[in-house]
Amino acid sequence: MNKIITIGREFGSGGREIGRILAEILKFAYYDREIISEISKRTSLSEKYVQNIAEQKPVIPFPIHTGRTFWAVIPDYGQSVHSEQHNIIREAASKSDCIIVGRGADYVLRELKPFRIFVYSDDESKLKRCRENQSHDYEKGAEMSDKELIKRISQINKARADYYEFYTGLKWGDKVNYDLCINTSAISPKKIAENIAEFFKCSC
Amino acid sequence: MNKIITIGREFGSGGREIGRILAEILKFAYYDREIISEISKRTSLSEKYVQNIAEQKPVIPFPIHTGRTFWAVIPDYGQSVHSEQHNIIREAASKSDCIIVGRGADYVLRELKPFRIFVYSDDESKLKRCRENQSHDYEKGAEMSDKELIKRISQINKARADYYEFYTGLKWGDKVNYDLCINTSAISPKKIAENIAEFFKCSC
Repeated sequence: MNKIITIGREFGSGGREIGRILAEILKFAYYDREIISEISKRTSLSEKYVQNIAEQKPVIPFPIHTGRTFWAVIPDYGQSVHSEQHNIIREAASKSDCIIVGRGADYVLRELKPFRIFVYSDDESKLKRCRENQSHDYEKGAEMSDKELIKRISQINKARADYYEFYTGLKWGDKVNYDLCINTSAISPKKIAENIAEFFKCSC
Repeated sequence: MNKIITIGREFGSGGREIGRILAEILKFAYYDREIISEISKRTSLSEKYVQNIAEQKPVIPFPIHTGRTFWAVIPDYGQSVHSEQHNIIREAASKSDCIIVGRGADYVLRELKPFRIFVYSDDESKLKRCRENQSHDYEKGAEMSDKELIKRISQINKARADYYEFYTGLKWGDKVNYDLCINTSAISPKKIAENIAEFFKCSC
């Protein structure tokens, strides 16, 4: 059976960088934005659009009252993206040893018993990381005050939490759903990745 | 400044064993039940009595209504034990590099920026560990069914959570209060201690 590591991550906590380095150390395949590109190809939706809805719980525009039951109207695109995302995650896990960042992969692949990591950090550290990486992670960050940027980061993390909880019924970032939760505020991504690799080897 | 590691731990998750091994690896002083013995000496209360109340929030037998304010009556012994516990934790941290298990030490020593660990595990793992260590950790465990023992473990952990929250205002086991949270269900205490040692070295 392939070895699988999933990394849940607060926005601004370095999950992507840690995942990349860990994949290099372990020689595992790495999936993060690659999943977005693949969904885009399969659905013919733009990458930007897919990115926007890939980690959002479905928008429920209005309830329709049918008999005694309220039915939620879920846009088709959101469902397609979500469904393709699950397919791609499962395909990735079946292909080779891999690391999958975000997208509820720990839950999607729960029967394969992945090694489940969650990374988080304090606001100051998130802010610093976002300022450093804003060209990649957050285009408009430079125009924002610290307070505005912290608020925006919180909104992104709230959306991730909502998505995770909507599709899994579990609490995003709750330690009981992970094998290792790491505060990334004070240790470099490289050191964290090296240490995760050691932890992971012990768990196999 | 001395280096300090604190280990919060769910009962049955191997926190004590991990702490001991970690102390051996790092050549740090180790404090756990030693604190109970020292409180017992200083207060002339029996170790068993101290053990029973050292991680319990104060019992509030009845409220006394004074004017518009309700005042809680906190037994003197509980307060003495709590107060001595804090003194001993601070003394330990001022003496040498050390590892302190439980007793809200992460909060007591927060100004010294300890490396804060929390260990937890699933019920099955807790049960197994308690059965194996019952002579030390839980005298009556052998007489209990699995269900009863799980219930007792939950009660002990509830008392620890209540104690922590009462004295710190923070949520016990919430990852935001720790640097590293480790699920000990599938990795041996020795391997976990070795990995914590590496993480800790990176954080210094």
